[in-house]
Amino acid sequence: MKKTKQVNNGGSRLKIIPLGGLEQIGMNITAFEYEDSIVVVDCGLSFPDDDMLGIDMVIPDITYLKDNIEKVKGFVITHGHEDHIGALPYVLKQMNIPVYATRLTMGIIENKLKEHNLLKSTKRKVIKFGQSINLGQFRIEFIKTNHSIVDAAALAIYSPAGTVVHTGDFKVDYTPVFGDAIDLQRFAEIGRKGVLALLCESTNAERPGFTPSERTLSRTFDTIFHEHPNKRIIIATFASNVDRVQQIINSAYKYNRKVVVEGRSMVNIIDTAMNLGCLNIPENTLINIEQLRNYPDERTVIITTGSQGESMAALSRMAASVHRKISITPNDVIIFSSNPIPGNEKAVTKVINELLRKGAEVIFQDAHVSGHACQEEIKLIYTLVHPRYSVPIHGEFKHRQAQQRIAVDLGIPKENIFMLNSGDVLELDSEKAQVTGRVQVGAILVDGLGVGDVGNVVLRDRQHLAEDGIMIVALALDSASGQLVGGPDLVSRGFVYVKESDELMDEAQELMQDVLDRCIGKGCTDWGRIKSAVKDSLGDYIWKKTKRRPMILPIIMDV
Amino acid sequence: MKKTKQVNNGGSRLKIIPLGGLEQIGMNITAFEYEDSIVVVDCGLSFPDDDMLGIDMVIPDITYLKDNIEKVKGFVITHGHEDHIGALPYVLKQMNIPVYATRLTMGIIENKLKEHNLLKSTKRKVIKFGQSINLGQFRIEFIKTNHSIVDAAALAIYSPAGTVVHTGDFKVDYTPVFGDAIDLQRFAEIGRKGVLALLCESTNAERPGFTPSERTLSRTFDTIFHEHPNKRIIIATFASNVDRVQQIINSAYKYNRKVVVEGRSMVNIIDTAMNLGCLNIPENTLINIEQLRNYPDERTVIITTGSQGESMAALSRMAASVHRKISITPNDVIIFSSNPIPGNEKAVTKVINELLRKGAEVIFQDAHVSGHACQEEIKLIYTLVHPRYSVPIHGEFKHRQAQQRIAVDLGIPKENIFMLNSGDVLELDSEKAQVTGRVQVGAILVDGLGVGDVGNVVLRDRQHLAEDGIMIVALALDSASGQLVGGPDLVSRGFVYVKESDELMDEAQELMQDVLDRCIGKGCTDWGRIKSAVKDSLGDYIWKKTKRRPMILPIIMDV
Repeated sequence: MKKTKQVNNGGSRLKIIPLGGLEQIGMNITAFEYEDSIVVVDCGLSFPDDDMLGIDMVIPDITYLKDNIEKVKGFVITHGHEDHIGALPYVLKQMNIPVYATRLTMGIIENKLKEHNLLKSTKRKVIKFGQSINLGQFRIEFIKTNHSIVDAAALAIYSPAGTVVHTGDFKVDYTPVFGDAIDLQRFAEIGRKGVLALLCESTNAERPGFTPSERTLSRTFDTIFHEHPNKRIIIATFASNVDRVQQIINSAYKYNRKVVVEGRSMVNIIDTAMNLGCLNIPENTLINIEQLRNYPDERTVIITTGSQGESMAALSRMAASVHRKISITPNDVIIFSSNPIPGNEKAVTKVINELLRKGAEVIFQDAHVSGHACQEEIKLIYTLVHPRYSVPIHGEFKHRQAQQRIAVDLGIPKENIFMLNSGDVLELDSEKAQVTGRVQVGAILVDGLGVGDVGNVVLRDRQHLAEDGIMIVALALDSASGQLVGGPDLVSRGFVYVKESDELMDEAQELMQDVLDRCIGKGCTDWGRIKSAVKDSLGDYIWKKTKRRPMILPIIMDV
Repeated sequence: MKKTKQVNNGGSRLKIIPLGGLEQIGMNITAFEYEDSIVVVDCGLSFPDDDMLGIDMVIPDITYLKDNIEKVKGFVITHGHEDHIGALPYVLKQMNIPVYATRLTMGIIENKLKEHNLLKSTKRKVIKFGQSINLGQFRIEFIKTNHSIVDAAALAIYSPAGTVVHTGDFKVDYTPVFGDAIDLQRFAEIGRKGVLALLCESTNAERPGFTPSERTLSRTFDTIFHEHPNKRIIIATFASNVDRVQQIINSAYKYNRKVVVEGRSMVNIIDTAMNLGCLNIPENTLINIEQLRNYPDERTVIITTGSQGESMAALSRMAASVHRKISITPNDVIIFSSNPIPGNEKAVTKVINELLRKGAEVIFQDAHVSGHACQEEIKLIYTLVHPRYSVPIHGEFKHRQAQQRIAVDLGIPKENIFMLNSGDVLELDSEKAQVTGRVQVGAILVDGLGVGDVGNVVLRDRQHLAEDGIMIVALALDSASGQLVGGPDLVSRGFVYVKESDELMDEAQELMQDVLDRCIGKGCTDWGRIKSAVKDSLGDYIWKKTKRRPMILPIIMDV
């Protein structure tokens, strides 16, 4: 014991600081800090909760990085999904830091940077698997993994305090559709040399067994094509699942069908993947949507967005008969090559019902495999990497706790497994690991062009307005005498249909007149008191009559 | 053929008119009409869709019944769930019609009528299984079934045009917890005599096999109690699942624990069930929540509402540490004896994560069985009843279509199976069946005390307000000169946090001043034109600056 202590004397400890991603799915971003160097892994967004009305996306609070900007050496990105790259443009506007990623990941990032006019100003470097980059006191190695998007990487993060392995999102696919299987040998080599900590994803940690290979779906698609020789085939999947698209195109080619890709996000990613050589499409297989009419149903396949029932996506528009180019008919078979993400179940079912009502056949089971590691795969990685400490990441608490149980089963002492919260500072070296502090973290709401200008006050107002609407009481006071010279005028929105609620509105009007007569008659000129009187009396009246609490907004004009 | 026709000569046809329940889960209500008699089966509510902001519940439009009020002989209710009885008080306020139901069903209905002050004015009759009632030209027989609530009934509806069997919601439970198994012999007898049409529920029609008996859970609960001898046990389930509560109480008694029932809706139903003899609770087993502190954890069980993650339910309040009497500790084991209803998955998961974070153990699988018939049970009922026509009911389109496939497999010609929409009038006799028309149907929104005063206009306003808030532009015009004498004052709610958006609001203020100067300066006194100018210019400005579209509301005061 004493000897080991001496070895580490003088050396600093490594800090692992998750800035998001541990309280919800999404918004993955983790800082690794050693002395004067910080490297940031991923920079994702999360999608708004149901109560975040009108919000487009949520990005992490990066105050800690801005406060330590001189230390920050780079963003290292594991793969091209929104929950790992989506916040990058917003963060890069606040701090100009280089970005490192593999080929397709960088291609997708560059699309985003273009949209935000950041392409020129952002230093970028495409990294190959097996390649390392030096960032301050860190060396980062990109390790090939498999996932539901091509070019996903795990990271070996070498620091003077020891090596950390970060899996990114991964599965073990021995027979991937494109490129190599996960580089298990490299995980083994790194593990053999000694790994301080493993940050492993938890999405499927509750699921026993092994996630099937993406390639198992090629037979599924062939079967579906074989069984529907006379129908048009429409397949909905995730826009970014390039391998899935590849397999659908393979089956289409085999069965002599032309392929249309529909939905803006899918078209973008497919273009990028084609340009980077991540997709092999036989000539004359892809056609554009205008050409669809030149082919009979049995010669076409449409690959489309909308597998999550998103109301504006292409498939939802087809189902609702508002798609401008494609109408669903009884000669369509629609395949959902996806599982509903929790929260989307009802929306997906709605689309399915609409498609069935139009007479189409719908296949919504067994045409999807997950991109995340199940329990046996997680055990495999732990066993190869053999870490001293474990930090389950990427998942809700229940998923991360399931990984904790796996780690304990594998013999990692429970006190060496850290169930962190975003903002926790975990300091570690080969001697010990402990949470030593907290940094500022949080969720910044993006609404249109506004980043962070919608906070709790605005959200609470939106929730209030959504629930019961608004009732405005406008009045004009003479600035000299303080007398009522206009109003009270009552205007409501989202409260009741006024044309059918005459009586209620008339009574409310009378009540307001009384309240103001009394209040102003007594010589009250304090606007605050007048507003309170309006709010209280009108609020009570409406509650008594309707059991609703619209927002009541008195507006006093000075004339 | 000719002979059969003669038999029916002169006879009228039976009309089956679903007034709700075929487009969504919930709002079950079906009218059966023969000449001068109408009988209505069930009168349920449905819960609001996500886009029905602020709405408490949805009830059916009963215009057709009101227009034919002299024909309506009674409401016949199959069982006491909200989607079958929830709209009754609202409908009975519009038409005073007798209600017929079995014991517990009537008990639950009476609780509702009390709340709405309808108990005295409503004629009610409790019907026993096997008993029949005559309602105009109909005779209605109540047949014992099994379901996730005690006293569920199927109905045999005898009319001069033939017999219809309506299953209500059911499962086949050979070993029910309380009372008898479903009366399969009676279904067989009725089927033997000849059934014109079967209306069978479809909820689980996509699921192969047989729904397990409710009683299988008694072993599950015993095992959980046995394995957690030192912990407090908290079990969340549906308030109305009296049998489930019975089994939990049985296990509690066996393991020498006291039972607390928590959550208003559950307390109400348990009280009703106890008073009617539908629950057998050993003496000194139930305690009230105040007595909980007198017993150690290992001597108590809490049965609670909140199994669907409803934010105001008891379990959610415990999880969020806002329950006034019960705090979750690591010595708690919480069992979800329920499956999430589609749409509630995320809310349930949120509660589970909160409980886990408090160190509690959570069991959320394998502690529930469905109350609805799977495919083999549906086949059994079809085979016993042997109907000429089939009308799949109670389920989304995909569920009903799954039942249609089962019926076809059983040899019913596809043209004899009617996939109806709410409002369709199906006329039938032993000769033929066809949809002959439509009646008015619809969804009436209930918000607080208001029934139907929130319609599409109000909902659209709420959605608009929820998305981007409101911006009010108030100004005062001199009624004589038409000159601007006050304002423009800009007030926003739910749009931006004004204190941090000075610049935007200042610029908008200047813009409004300009617009009004120009408009009124030119001598415009048309309020409509002034309002349009304000809306258009401010809307464009805000969109350009923020990519948001708040509701813009000009208010002009006459001074």
